[in-house]
Amino acid sequence: MVVDDARLRRQAGPARAEGPAAGTTPREASAVSLPRRLAAEALGTGFLLAAVVGSGILASRLSGGNVGLALLANSLATALALYALIEWFAPISGAHLNPAVTMVMAFRGDIDLHSAAAYIPAQTSGAVAGVGVANAMFDVPVFLVSTQARDGPARMLGEFVATFGLVGIVWVCSRHRPAAIAAVVAAYIGSAFWFTPTDFANPALTLARTLTDTFAGIRPADVPGFLVAQFAGAAAAVLVFRWLAPVS
Amino acid sequence: MVVDDARLRRQAGPARAEGPAAGTTPREASAVSLPRRLAAEALGTGFLLAAVVGSGILASRLSGGNVGLALLANSLATALALYALIEWFAPISGAHLNPAVTMVMAFRGDIDLHSAAAYIPAQTSGAVAGVGVANAMFDVPVFLVSTQARDGPARMLGEFVATFGLVGIVWVCSRHRPAAIAAVVAAYIGSAFWFTPTDFANPALTLARTLTDTFAGIRPADVPGFLVAQFAGAAAAVLVFRWLAPVS
Amino acid sequence: MVVDDARLRRQAGPARAEGPAAGTTPREASAVSLPRRLAAEALGTGFLLAAVVGSGILASRLSGGNVGLALLANSLATALALYALIEWFAPISGAHLNPAVTMVMAFRGDIDLHSAAAYIPAQTSGAVAGVGVANAMFDVPVFLVSTQARDGPARMLGEFVATFGLVGIVWVCSRHRPAAIAAVVAAYIGSAFWFTPTDFANPALTLARTLTDTFAGIRPADVPGFLVAQFAGAAAAVLVFRWLAPVS
Amino acid sequence: MVVDDARLRRQAGPARAEGPAAGTTPREASAVSLPRRLAAEALGTGFLLAAVVGSGILASRLSGGNVGLALLANSLATALALYALIEWFAPISGAHLNPAVTMVMAFRGDIDLHSAAAYIPAQTSGAVAGVGVANAMFDVPVFLVSTQARDGPARMLGEFVATFGLVGIVWVCSRHRPAAIAAVVAAYIGSAFWFTPTDFANPALTLARTLTDTFAGIRPADVPGFLVAQFAGAAAAVLVFRWLAPVS
Repeated sequence: MVVDDARLRRQAGPARAEGPAAGTTPREASAVSLPRRLAAEALGTGFLLAAVVGSGILASRLSGGNVGLALLANSLATALALYALIEWFAPISGAHLNPAVTMVMAFRGDIDLHSAAAYIPAQTSGAVAGVGVANAMFDVPVFLVSTQARDGPARMLGEFVATFGLVGIVWVCSRHRPAAIAAVVAAYIGSAFWFTPTDFANPALTLARTLTDTFAGIRPADVPGFLVAQFAGAAAAVLVFRWLAPVS
Repeated sequence: MVVDDARLRRQAGPARAEGPAAGTTPREASAVSLPRRLAAEALGTGFLLAAVVGSGILASRLSGGNVGLALLANSLATALALYALIEWFAPISGAHLNPAVTMVMAFRGDIDLHSAAAYIPAQTSGAVAGVGVANAMFDVPVFLVSTQARDGPARMLGEFVATFGLVGIVWVCSRHRPAAIAAVVAAYIGSAFWFTPTDFANPALTLARTLTDTFAGIRPADVPGFLVAQFAGAAAAVLVFRWLAPVS
Repeated sequence: MVVDDARLRRQAGPARAEGPAAGTTPREASAVSLPRRLAAEALGTGFLLAAVVGSGILASRLSGGNVGLALLANSLATALALYALIEWFAPISGAHLNPAVTMVMAFRGDIDLHSAAAYIPAQTSGAVAGVGVANAMFDVPVFLVSTQARDGPARMLGEFVATFGLVGIVWVCSRHRPAAIAAVVAAYIGSAFWFTPTDFANPALTLARTLTDTFAGIRPADVPGFLVAQFAGAAAAVLVFRWLAPVS
Repeated sequence: MVVDDARLRRQAGPARAEGPAAGTTPREASAVSLPRRLAAEALGTGFLLAAVVGSGILASRLSGGNVGLALLANSLATALALYALIEWFAPISGAHLNPAVTMVMAFRGDIDLHSAAAYIPAQTSGAVAGVGVANAMFDVPVFLVSTQARDGPARMLGEFVATFGLVGIVWVCSRHRPAAIAAVVAAYIGSAFWFTPTDFANPALTLARTLTDTFAGIRPADVPGFLVAQFAGAAAAVLVFRWLAPVS
């Protein structure tokens, strides 16, 4: 009763076709010019960082000193943002929003090396800008180096596990569950906020979080360990899932 | 084993066809008469405000002074309501429930100007009624002007960001993720409750919230700044996403 | 790589076909014998009450006196259960789980009167059994009449609003969003836990909740008012949505 | 605008076809070699236990002694993980992640007995490894026998109910709602954290949880009662749902 059927059917066509592009396979997005894809990666990663840092600030302010409550709000806000951001930017750039994802997709040949090399600085600069916007929205210094210590072997193991899982999910679901990948990645990251000690799993996010001295911050001195653990986790996932779910 | 296959197949037809109409493209709803569409916009926006204001009252009453807990309940209740409302009213009116969305859809030509001009007062009067019903359900004065201050440049920046994101999502997902738009908008708004200071992102909702002196209220004096920030955010989103995701 | 394509395609057939049956249109389930459908309604409504009452007991025990936290757990547990139960029992009985839904579906001709008349006692006795099981799982008396007062005109208005919304959603989404109805109903009920004072919206559930003197209970003396408000809300929704979304 | 339509259509084919494999019907996964399927079951069950135990540790550490808040985080983290894990591993092994599910699928003929007999030790050893990794990530002894008492008839009834529901859901939804099964199982388990006293519903998980002396642990002495209750619940579900939803 509601419909102009002809136009809807036309619309239904591309909608179906684009479904599988969700979140991972930028090659399918290659009809979009590189500058647009880079702008999408920067904007999307910026919103991701604004969500992580902004919700961290508000949650820690309002939770009356109960860190568990603050982390609950922070984790749910981040997971909801991630779901929305992947659906929003996937049709433009593939919505990697994470250099680890871009590297793995490049390794598998799902994005060309030239684009991949441009995606990573776009993500990183977007992430930095997102942190600045979050800080400004909550009236703290736009950029202030974090003093929050996050170190030790247990935490490094946690980053390894978190990144292993994220990369494994992207590897499998980008091929076998393309329509669900935004929800799967968001659910996984929201959960890993609780089952790993830090759940960064993203080099651009790790770097940018040095620039806020709030709930979500990380001391620059702790960044190298995180990057090593993330790289190792991503590499291990590629080794395991090349065997478990080979590219046909 | 459960099915009258023939009838189901008939039903499946329109169900698929209507899928893409979810939440955004009222032109496809033009077979529905304008009075019905206006009633749907009023009723839907009314339920949205009842959800925002009502859950704010109950959450602040029950949370023992912990504002973080109250906001967690308020944000989840609002996001769940928004998801349900968009799925519910999209087949009738497109489920804009927000003058900023209606204006952007009119700009893009997805709704005719005559309908758009009628949608906005329908949304606004529905919003006012919804606030009154929420107040009455919780035994506070049906309409009482809010005394809650919400001002300052950081908050204005937050409204700009929140509306920029909402309009950007509607712009992209109404074309490229039509079946997911209810979930994407709900997830984004639920998250923005935490990553922006106020997350109104809706002029009708802003005006109506002056009429409750409870958790979700806003002083009338602060409304003009909100409307300016929302308008600027929506305009910026249109500029950016016309380039990033041009209408074919 | 994973699939026995032929069998999957066969399976995909009925799966698609059954999609639209989700949660509402028992006529399509008429190939299932009435005793099976009644058993499904009883079992499903039993699980619903076990979820409402059981999660209410555990949440109020564990939340250290913070009623807001208890209601947050209770509302999320109920919404998640409702989503699972509708998907689980829809292929067998349509998953009404609520006499108000059955009455409206019978009014619209989506279920024959003979079946509808049998559904309602099946739902009610299932609901009573579910309360008993919940009480037993948490080591409180299997049946004990509630002493919890829930009265007053504001609460009655709340029940009217909650039931109006539920019936309106079922009316529209059973035809226009069949694949999403489980998620929409669950999201709506989870939200209405917060934006209405009581959010029962279900006569069988109202009656059965008199039999537990715990968080989710209701005094028998308050039941008649609830039933009147629920009936009025359902009738108003039918009047409004017959016009807004006429059956083609 | 974004798409290489031909490749997307090719991709859309298998994606649709694989949809129905979600989470339950390993026979369709028989093109995947048994060693790969066993590795997937071990890895998936390992991540599940890491999520349950890890989030339990962090939640109880951060919640300031409020057990309700800790359980809220623990239940949401587990439900989100379960959703992601089923989508992730279903294309490889069917994502049983639970000996009770494997036994029921074998009974119904959906997995051959030889594979089923190998799945169960794979799940159990993965579960044990997952507990060890969780403990290590949070700097507690890798394996330490739990001292947490979980006994009594009420709890046994709860395990019976929890497993009855899980097996009933898998029985029905694997045939009638294959695309939704990950979300349905996750929602049910997340809810049952609150409406049953313990909600293990999984023999491998029960055994492995003896090896952590933290929030999610269970005394070895209490395990036999849990296994009996789980087996009884699964058997009762098979009896009921063979009649309610016979295999065609």
